[in-house]
Amino acid sequence: MKITVLLSGGLDSSTCLALVVSKYGSENVEALSIHYGQKHDREVRSAQAVADYYGVKLTILDLSPVFAGSNCSLLNHSSEEIEHRSYAEQLKDLGGTGTVNTYVPFRNGLMLSAAAAVAQSNGSDEIWYGAHKDDAAGRAYPDCTPEFVDYMGKAIYEGTGHEIKLVAPFINSNKADIVRQGLAMKVPYELTWSCYEGGEKPCGTCGTCIDRFNAFKLNNAIDPLMK
Amino acid sequence: MKITVLLSGGLDSSTCLALVVSKYGSENVEALSIHYGQKHDREVRSAQAVADYYGVKLTILDLSPVFAGSNCSLLNHSSEEIEHRSYAEQLKDLGGTGTVNTYVPFRNGLMLSAAAAVAQSNGSDEIWYGAHKDDAAGRAYPDCTPEFVDYMGKAIYEGTGHEIKLVAPFINSNKADIVRQGLAMKVPYELTWSCYEGGEKPCGTCGTCIDRFNAFKLNNAIDPLMK
Repeated sequence: MKITVLLSGGLDSSTCLALVVSKYGSENVEALSIHYGQKHDREVRSAQAVADYYGVKLTILDLSPVFAGSNCSLLNHSSEEIEHRSYAEQLKDLGGTGTVNTYVPFRNGLMLSAAAAVAQSNGSDEIWYGAHKDDAAGRAYPDCTPEFVDYMGKAIYEGTGHEIKLVAPFINSNKADIVRQGLAMKVPYELTWSCYEGGEKPCGTCGTCIDRFNAFKLNNAIDPLMK
Repeated sequence: MKITVLLSGGLDSSTCLALVVSKYGSENVEALSIHYGQKHDREVRSAQAVADYYGVKLTILDLSPVFAGSNCSLLNHSSEEIEHRSYAEQLKDLGGTGTVNTYVPFRNGLMLSAAAAVAQSNGSDEIWYGAHKDDAAGRAYPDCTPEFVDYMGKAIYEGTGHEIKLVAPFINSNKADIVRQGLAMKVPYELTWSCYEGGEKPCGTCGTCIDRFNAFKLNNAIDPLMK
């Protein structure tokens, strides 16, 4: 069994990598990180640090030209500001459902497709990917919903000639569940990066910072990045 | 209504573009061509010529790094030779079903995902894509089967927050049907390119050359590239 893991360098995917390594051993795991033009490209450096920690080979691909025409706030060239509110508050403004302004057009579909190509090239049997329930809520990130993951998994299985399966171990978990599992596995969260602003320290007020802070709090723990 | 068309510069996708332009007008159409490291990258120049002919904006993306680890014979860096036999003969050797050696790992999945990202960025409602029955037969190209197109379409619809639909107008047609439609629409087939070898003239003996030759023959026509 060989696995290719999508590793952004954030909390979810780093925990996903830890889970795969604990199950299959680092010698059977490769990681893939994708630069897509994000403001917080320091997360790619975090991906390298986490991959190094687990002794896993990391491939980094630059697919940023695909998003040259998007004005999503998460992108370097965007004229939009990143929202500094929780996803729940952003969803309220959208009437309960709709994409938040940090949704990058079909980004996860592109990443999973690139992962499928890489996985089939390196002889993997499965792709693992850390999508979870909080990001899917209200279709804030429609490319994290169980429906998307289900169809994408079937498309990958069919499109690779029944060679590659997609596994999303946290699809029914929230971020607090993920942190609980990660703390038990001693994931080096001090090496990870989530904040969308990509500054020296996490801003603490963007959607992903708020989500991350709460996930640690619900586990009676403190995020090592906030110490 | 705005449409993004995947345009390789080959026969199928050029006919697909002609169909879309005839339905919606060139002002409502954009084309996307993807360089993926193919030996026959002259097809990208054909894509430009066809897009220019129809007065449609063409975006060209280079996603070749995704396939750096693949040894598929279609790729520039591959040590494998392209097969010079029909797909039917190649499938016989595979026991009737299996990927041919010009199948590029999940290439169409990656292209469609990139198209979804571009389409959502440029405000398109639909992506059109020229997959057809001959390529799907025996899962020679598993990323052309009706099952793949169905799941990929659903993944794109879900993953874009119900904004983008995938249309594959030739999914139940063979290449001869496509040429019949194309000849009726006077598609400039002299501008297109199919041969995998990418020489000065089509080799006439690779899988796609044989398929193309037969498609014209069945329409009592001669391929302008073979004149």
